[in-house]
Amino acid sequence: MTRYKLIIEYDGGPFHGWQRQDNGASVQQSLENAVTSFCGEIQLVEGAGRTDAGVHALGQVAHVDIEKDTDGSTVRDALNFHLRGLPVTVLAAEEVDRQFHARFSARERSYLFRILDRRPPPAVDAGRVWWVPVALDAGAMHEAAQALIGNHDFSSFRAAQCQADSPVKTLDELRVTRAGDEIHIQVRARSFLHHQVRNFAGTLKLVGEGKWSAADIAAILAAKDRTRAGPTAPPEGLYLVKVGY
Amino acid sequence: MTRYKLIIEYDGGPFHGWQRQDNGASVQQSLENAVTSFCGEIQLVEGAGRTDAGVHALGQVAHVDIEKDTDGSTVRDALNFHLRGLPVTVLAAEEVDRQFHARFSARERSYLFRILDRRPPPAVDAGRVWWVPVALDAGAMHEAAQALIGNHDFSSFRAAQCQADSPVKTLDELRVTRAGDEIHIQVRARSFLHHQVRNFAGTLKLVGEGKWSAADIAAILAAKDRTRAGPTAPPEGLYLVKVGY
Repeated sequence: MTRYKLIIEYDGGPFHGWQRQDNGASVQQSLENAVTSFCGEIQLVEGAGRTDAGVHALGQVAHVDIEKDTDGSTVRDALNFHLRGLPVTVLAAEEVDRQFHARFSARERSYLFRILDRRPPPAVDAGRVWWVPVALDAGAMHEAAQALIGNHDFSSFRAAQCQADSPVKTLDELRVTRAGDEIHIQVRARSFLHHQVRNFAGTLKLVGEGKWSAADIAAILAAKDRTRAGPTAPPEGLYLVKVGY
Repeated sequence: MTRYKLIIEYDGGPFHGWQRQDNGASVQQSLENAVTSFCGEIQLVEGAGRTDAGVHALGQVAHVDIEKDTDGSTVRDALNFHLRGLPVTVLAAEEVDRQFHARFSARERSYLFRILDRRPPPAVDAGRVWWVPVALDAGAMHEAAQALIGNHDFSSFRAAQCQADSPVKTLDELRVTRAGDEIHIQVRARSFLHHQVRNFAGTLKLVGEGKWSAADIAAILAAKDRTRAGPTAPPEGLYLVKVGY
C-alpha cells in the first residue's frame, strides 16, 4: 500500500462540489471512480479543501492509498485516461509518506477570486469569473481589505452552515489588484471558514462601488455579525490555487 | 438608417462558426436574431472574418444598419440583453460612416493560437486551447516561423476549399512565445487564406517537437504544395484578437 499525493485542476461548473454526495456528480467521486477503473481498488480520495459547487481549482491537493505496485507518473497518466471527457485533470502524482494527510498536513491555502469588471457580460470566460458590470475601485478595495489581515474572529464572514470549531482564523494575505478588465482578489491563510473568501469578495465589491469605506470594513469585522457584511459572491469566480505543506 | 460598428467576443465552441447556415447555430445568426428582438428589423450583420466552427474571438468586428433612432451604447446593451445565455457578447457599438464595411475596410487582422504544452490534459481551459502533451521548443518554433514573414505564395498553408482569388499574401508578424505551460502563436496580416493560421500552428508544432528545422519550413513554403506542410491544428486554440481599420 503506497500513499500518493495528487495535485488536481478542475472546472467546478458541472460538479456539485468537491465532496462525494448522493444527488450529483462530485470531483471526489470522479477521482475515486478513476482510481477504481485503474487498479480495481475502492479507495478514498481525501482532498485538502471541500470546494463548493461551481468553485474551480488550479491546485487542489488530495491523497489516495493504492495497493497495486505502480509509480507516480503512471498514477497521473492512468487517472487522466479514466477522467477523459470530464473537466478534471491530475497535474502531478507522487509517492508520499503514510503520515501525509492532504487535509490535516496542510499549512496554508491560497485562493484567487476573479471579477470581470466591465459592462458587457463574459463570453469566453463565462462561468469562470464573477461578472460585475459597475466600475470598481481596486485600490480602495485593497486598502480596506488590509483591516482583515491577522488573527481575528471572522464571524461576520462565516456561513451559517460552517462546521469549524472556532470563528478565529489568521489571514496572512489579502491583495486586490486590477489586470485590465479583471479584478483579482488573492488570499492566503492556514485555513478558512465556510464561504469566507466569497464573503470577502461580496463585501469588498461594495467597497469598490464606493458604498462602504475602509472604516466600514473594520467595523463589520469587529461586529462579529454575519448580517453586517456583504452578500456571498457567486462560486464561479473562485479558484483554489495552491495548498502548501 | 445608421450604421454601427460592433466589437464582439465569443466562445466558438457551441457554434458552427461565424457564418449563418441552415444546419446549426452560428454567431452571425445569433447577432441577427438579437437585432430583430431589439428593433424589429431584419438586418444583415456583416463580420470582418468568417471564423470556422469552434474558433473563438476576443475582438471580431461586424457592422449592421439599424433604422430605429438609437445610439451606440443602447445598441450594445440591448444586443447583450437579447444574447443572454449565449457565449457571445458585444464589447462596443459605435456609429460609423455608411462607407465603413467590416470586411472590406479592414486593414489588418490579428490572431492568437494557444497551445497548452503539458502532459496532463486541460481542465479549466478545455475547449480553449490545443492540448499538445509532448514538450515543444518555442524558441525553435519562433526562429523557423520567421521564414514565413513577408509577401509569399502561401499555397502550402491553404485549405483546399479556400475561396481567395490568390494564394499570395503578406504576413506582417508571426511570433511564438512561451508563457508557463502555454505556447502562444501571434500572427498579423492584412488578410489570411482559409485555415492559414491553423496550418501554421500544425506545422510549427512539428518544428517544436524537433521533427522539422527552420530550413524545412522555408522549403515547405517554397514548394507551394499543401501536402508538404503539417496537419491543420484544431480550431479550439484559435482566437481572432483584433481587426484594424
